[in-house]
Amino acid sequence: MDKHVMATDAEGAEVPDQVVIEEPLQIVIDGHPVAVTMRTPGHDADLALGFLLTEGVIRSREDVRKIDTDSRDNHALVFLADSAEVDLQKLTRHVFSASSCGVCGKATIEAVTTQRPPLPESMLFSPEVLLAAPEKLREAQSVFARTGGLHAAGIFAADGNPQVIREDIGRHNAVDKVLGHAVEAGWNLSQSFLLVSGRVSFEIMQKALAGGIPLVAALSAPSSLAVDFAERSNQALVAFLRPPKFRVFAGKLAR
Amino acid sequence: MDKHVMATDAEGAEVPDQVVIEEPLQIVIDGHPVAVTMRTPGHDADLALGFLLTEGVIRSREDVRKIDTDSRDNHALVFLADSAEVDLQKLTRHVFSASSCGVCGKATIEAVTTQRPPLPESMLFSPEVLLAAPEKLREAQSVFARTGGLHAAGIFAADGNPQVIREDIGRHNAVDKVLGHAVEAGWNLSQSFLLVSGRVSFEIMQKALAGGIPLVAALSAPSSLAVDFAERSNQALVAFLRPPKFRVFAGKLAR
Repeated sequence: MDKHVMATDAEGAEVPDQVVIEEPLQIVIDGHPVAVTMRTPGHDADLALGFLLTEGVIRSREDVRKIDTDSRDNHALVFLADSAEVDLQKLTRHVFSASSCGVCGKATIEAVTTQRPPLPESMLFSPEVLLAAPEKLREAQSVFARTGGLHAAGIFAADGNPQVIREDIGRHNAVDKVLGHAVEAGWNLSQSFLLVSGRVSFEIMQKALAGGIPLVAALSAPSSLAVDFAERSNQALVAFLRPPKFRVFAGKLAR
Repeated sequence: MDKHVMATDAEGAEVPDQVVIEEPLQIVIDGHPVAVTMRTPGHDADLALGFLLTEGVIRSREDVRKIDTDSRDNHALVFLADSAEVDLQKLTRHVFSASSCGVCGKATIEAVTTQRPPLPESMLFSPEVLLAAPEKLREAQSVFARTGGLHAAGIFAADGNPQVIREDIGRHNAVDKVLGHAVEAGWNLSQSFLLVSGRVSFEIMQKALAGGIPLVAALSAPSSLAVDFAERSNQALVAFLRPPKFRVFAGKLAR
């Protein structure tokens, strides 16, 4: 999603250009507005599903009765199934989201570290598979090529095949979109890995854990808290994935 | 701020590395926790001041009686002066922040566009001054050089001299830190510009407007909403500032 604009170059000449679209999306649960996220329109239902999964509101697609999205008015109207139990007042007060935001609203530090259990002993991914993934991510980044303004996230199978790749102006939104797609499809992600185009922070690891993903790879740098979180959650963390190089900051690969 | 860790390289060899520190900071106003932001420790009082400015809680340093920060327990305790009027319950419910998050908590779309008036007709900055700024920003980015994991923001005078430059894992935090420094120093920023190391979204323009800054420059891409916002606010927006090139997406330069 990009928009044509007129810009002026360094010589003062008018030039046509394209910029990535950023628009707010309001997520409404059973009639209650709970979050506004600045996102690139498209796959809004997946974004909402991924957001609800990573915020702990739902566990699977069965917890959602219906999602109505209308990108013209920037709303995602979520209707929960009876199986989902959520304290809406608490959610409205404590869950907020913006472009690359997710910890938002857990208004005490104690609440930042979520209460999800670590993953069980998991499979070891192959270095060759990881090294082949960035090119596949880049090939799918159509909008980035035109605007230079988008983050990408992809879920890849253990054999290296991309399962779903999404772009968004917010790096957290891109992750929510691929996770939401997996929720919609009912995928088990215990044999998959997540690749993100940018850096990997605490929040990205937390979202991957919510999706049950055992390895996160990033083209750029990790944060200290991402490394700590990965160790605590029994997740593997690979960063600076720039073929032929990478660095493993937590967990192990198949050798 | 960085942390030494052990990593494993692509050949499986153990290598020492450094990662940028990410830790939550809880901002507390008059005893009420209002926000948690994932930030790189350091200049926490400036971060809190900049956050309060850009969220509209304070207008100047006089609105704050005292700020106590303690990076060991990740708190910034803000005590407002009688001159500041804030609905704490509303703030607790609607203001939240995370690493590169700021729109957070304005839980309806209508509230996203803040009610700040546009800037008056402002000065025109020189292309030469803008083209010289990225190198000055990079020179000050000491932690980025070691970890590759930090965003930077700088406030520059019209003659190109850097007034304050800060780094943070969150790009919004870096901007809040320089704005908070300006608040603390009592600077008038109507003749200054803001340079950010990454992309420029709606939120960055909004924060610059809160600081009264008439021009924002970015090394990377703008979003559609950043361009729209800049036009509405009478701010200039320069992106892809990669000497000798740049693009002007809103406003004008001195020619």
